[in-house]
Amino acid sequence: MRTHYNHELTIKNVGENVVLNGWVAKARNLGSLMFVDLRDRFGITQLTFPDTLFAEANKLKNEYVIEVKGKVIERQSKNKNISTGDIEVLVSELNILNTASQPPIIISDDENILEETRLKYRYLDLRRPKVQSYLLKRHEIIQAAREVLVKEGFYELETPILGRSTPEGARDYLVPSRIHEGQFYALPQSPQMYKQLFMVAGFEKYFQFTKCFRDEDLRADRQPEFSQIDIEASFLSEVEIQTLIEKLLKNTFKKVLDLDIKVPFERMEYSDAIKFYGSDKPDTRFEMLIKDYTKTFSETNVPLFENEEYIAGISANDAKYYTRKKIDELTHLVKKNHGKALAFIKLQDGEFAGSIVKNLTSEELLSLGLKENEILFLVPGDFSNVSNSLGALRNQVARDLNLIDSNKFNFLWVINWPLLEYDEEAKRFFAMHHPFTAPNSIDALRNDPKNALARAYDVVLNGYELGGGSIRIHNKEMQDLMFKTLGFTDEEIKQRFGFFVNALQYGTPPHGGIALGLDRLVMLMTKTDNIRDVIAFPKTQNARDLMMEAPNFVEEEQLVELSIKVSK
Amino acid sequence: MRTHYNHELTIKNVGENVVLNGWVAKARNLGSLMFVDLRDRFGITQLTFPDTLFAEANKLKNEYVIEVKGKVIERQSKNKNISTGDIEVLVSELNILNTASQPPIIISDDENILEETRLKYRYLDLRRPKVQSYLLKRHEIIQAAREVLVKEGFYELETPILGRSTPEGARDYLVPSRIHEGQFYALPQSPQMYKQLFMVAGFEKYFQFTKCFRDEDLRADRQPEFSQIDIEASFLSEVEIQTLIEKLLKNTFKKVLDLDIKVPFERMEYSDAIKFYGSDKPDTRFEMLIKDYTKTFSETNVPLFENEEYIAGISANDAKYYTRKKIDELTHLVKKNHGKALAFIKLQDGEFAGSIVKNLTSEELLSLGLKENEILFLVPGDFSNVSNSLGALRNQVARDLNLIDSNKFNFLWVINWPLLEYDEEAKRFFAMHHPFTAPNSIDALRNDPKNALARAYDVVLNGYELGGGSIRIHNKEMQDLMFKTLGFTDEEIKQRFGFFVNALQYGTPPHGGIALGLDRLVMLMTKTDNIRDVIAFPKTQNARDLMMEAPNFVEEEQLVELSIKVSK
Repeated sequence: MRTHYNHELTIKNVGENVVLNGWVAKARNLGSLMFVDLRDRFGITQLTFPDTLFAEANKLKNEYVIEVKGKVIERQSKNKNISTGDIEVLVSELNILNTASQPPIIISDDENILEETRLKYRYLDLRRPKVQSYLLKRHEIIQAAREVLVKEGFYELETPILGRSTPEGARDYLVPSRIHEGQFYALPQSPQMYKQLFMVAGFEKYFQFTKCFRDEDLRADRQPEFSQIDIEASFLSEVEIQTLIEKLLKNTFKKVLDLDIKVPFERMEYSDAIKFYGSDKPDTRFEMLIKDYTKTFSETNVPLFENEEYIAGISANDAKYYTRKKIDELTHLVKKNHGKALAFIKLQDGEFAGSIVKNLTSEELLSLGLKENEILFLVPGDFSNVSNSLGALRNQVARDLNLIDSNKFNFLWVINWPLLEYDEEAKRFFAMHHPFTAPNSIDALRNDPKNALARAYDVVLNGYELGGGSIRIHNKEMQDLMFKTLGFTDEEIKQRFGFFVNALQYGTPPHGGIALGLDRLVMLMTKTDNIRDVIAFPKTQNARDLMMEAPNFVEEEQLVELSIKVSK
Repeated sequence: MRTHYNHELTIKNVGENVVLNGWVAKARNLGSLMFVDLRDRFGITQLTFPDTLFAEANKLKNEYVIEVKGKVIERQSKNKNISTGDIEVLVSELNILNTASQPPIIISDDENILEETRLKYRYLDLRRPKVQSYLLKRHEIIQAAREVLVKEGFYELETPILGRSTPEGARDYLVPSRIHEGQFYALPQSPQMYKQLFMVAGFEKYFQFTKCFRDEDLRADRQPEFSQIDIEASFLSEVEIQTLIEKLLKNTFKKVLDLDIKVPFERMEYSDAIKFYGSDKPDTRFEMLIKDYTKTFSETNVPLFENEEYIAGISANDAKYYTRKKIDELTHLVKKNHGKALAFIKLQDGEFAGSIVKNLTSEELLSLGLKENEILFLVPGDFSNVSNSLGALRNQVARDLNLIDSNKFNFLWVINWPLLEYDEEAKRFFAMHHPFTAPNSIDALRNDPKNALARAYDVVLNGYELGGGSIRIHNKEMQDLMFKTLGFTDEEIKQRFGFFVNALQYGTPPHGGIALGLDRLVMLMTKTDNIRDVIAFPKTQNARDLMMEAPNFVEEEQLVELSIKVSK
């Protein structure tokens, strides 16, 4: 129908006859003159109307859908802010394709409207230029990422959505089978086994942009279904897989944001990440490393620190900011993260102050080397809780003091993860990544599982886990040993993973892979902090689609056909 | 790890030191010499071993995974059948990466192995060169199709898998919600409403390669989950959408098969397709059109034809082929397709023979114009049943007599479909495509729904429906009228589709789209006739994944959490 989009016409088109489509973004009746801003996906063109069409044009309201024919003319008062600002179209024919009622929400990037209301009318919310730009960027990110994978010889292969429940990991979404009474499919938490089976089958290089499902209690940045870039390859080393991902991200940032990111990314040992950043996904856009003060305080008489295994802290440069009230908030944060207590010492106007100052001698205080207006936060306890709570504290203090340069994209690889973690309650090991991750050595798995390291790697961006990967176990005996270490009996292994363990024996190549969180990548690249912004039709934290009203009740007959009943 | 893939080395590489990976495809011990064919995804390279490695190499069995280092040397007896046939690699270092047990099925394109067994060991079945080539082609088809859509300005946008059940169409797969007791999500039968909402939201051009789900009783070429190329656009006419699809298919056939397909495709009226081909998806690779014989027999005295509304037939050129037994088979086929009876007349060795010859005069017989060895099949009855059964007969006769040129790809558009069909049992109209398809005129929908035509179009390839699309209703009142014509009450409309009908009032642009069946497209392009061949992990006709053993029983605790119970 149309000859041009609404961002295209310039002074060069003056004199041409054109056909345009779009929405009325603004209609202004200036008495004798009528101006309309016509919007489409790409931009805006100004329309003017001759007297003969004035009455018709005067009917136009915002969001009406129209088609116009007309001639491009030069504008008198030019608008430098839009690409078509030098011209306007003098309309000779106006065709109203659809009218529009007053929308129930204001379509504007002013986000004061309740998110609930916006999600209910998501089809209108999606008209906001900002949200449109998020989804356009999402599209571009997908294309740029895929481009690298295709060029590197990866095959785009699909795996089923209707799979089998293997309750090791998060909670599955189940789908009752109608044909097989009492049996259920499960939606995939990830295509892990399928992608490894592609390697068994000799495809060597696989990728897929796919949906994964976890029926978990939702946090702010979680969705019941999420998208991931899923990758697996044979005969590649850790570093080769990491290099591929660096290439993929470099191309994506260049194409979409015109940014050159530096590769290779920094590598950080998991143990250092915990020790210096208190996190397995450190935000390295700011310093403020965690420092070990155990020795410093070993000879002092601070009751709070007595008999504590580990004392560590971070220091920041605005003691004045940290009033009593602010420090109470931080104490609350530390305790929420299982830190025993938060102590602090600050040097303000040449005076030391803080919760433990009275327990320290002047010499001891001076030896800490605080500068004017510096504040030192200290947490005592065991290594793990101290690190965790200082990690949370570090991020909060950085936000408080505006230490984060939001234009930075700091990537790093966190490597050499522990293979297993022991759960005191369940009295068994759990896999830190998943049970298919290869240990650094089979001896360690066999003889010292607690300290065994994994051939796992996470790619971290600005304090977010962007993706996790590993070299997998490709040996039947090792996979068997792994499941046994996780506490499964032979019978359980056979029943749950039997076919998979079996598959490993028919010439399975060494292989590994990674999965990148697509939603999160888009979120970070568009600099929004709400994951729902970058998903076309997201669900609430309560796992509801407010627009579709899903989930919902179904006809009794549907349940009868599925041989299930609701039971309270 | 490797320096080359196994299809790469040629005479030009002689003298180079290389590292190769792969599977042992064949190991031959010729007494003093040891040859190994090393296979990877791309090809085969021949390895030879020096005396020092003979014992080690002699351990190699089929499907062992190895890494070798060695030097490229010229081969003595060259093999013209493979790209690396001029060279071999003299191995200096052999590294066994994994051993392989005897596989439970023979990995060969000889398909005598039961499909059940092959599906159980799908990861081994997928090693067959033929199946690998199907999935490689699938990958290439996806890339070529997507390339056109991206170039034409379409955005790749994702829609949810966890949606809402709207029981109009096929049976839904349901997913019980844990958080919202007694409520269910449904897996999408297609993203129809979502893609239209993208148009309401102003995205104008959308596409997605997506999974759809239908819990139907399965036929040979159906799967509970299937992939489709889903497309929707605003401000485009039928012809513009059809032209886009022609461009997409042209590019795909060129890139993947190096075939130039002719565009634009032929257009055929739905009524002509039924009349001349007895099918809404005519196979036009062969002629043999259905001919109306009602008039011809109106004056004759054939008891079988008495008082029949319509008599039609097809004629074929091998009367001799059609023995009594064959004709019995065809009669069975006609009756299965609701044809009342099958009559035939043949001219063999100058003599007329057949079921109704005795009822006809010589003149009447001669007036039929049969040639020597020609056979005329006739079916009496009402138009619809006669057409259907002759359509089935036509396809069968073409197969019987080898009339189909399997190198042909005959595309066509079937247009001007009926909007509705009346179901005598349910005593209501059903939408022929779906309730969102626009009628040719609102007056027809209002005043003569039975004869209203739809702005719908199917793309047909070689007798298969490759995709179906339509211009959609973009007007709230028309959508409302459509639902009412389908027999819904105001309350039902509001409850099931309320939000969608509402959405149409806020400036919805004219829009339309199409969905192409990806699995079917791959199947036709790879010339297999089994849809499971082109799906990596397919389900049986019984909706089972034999490898994963899904569906399966789950833990009682999982059902308790979901507040459901199995009830027989």
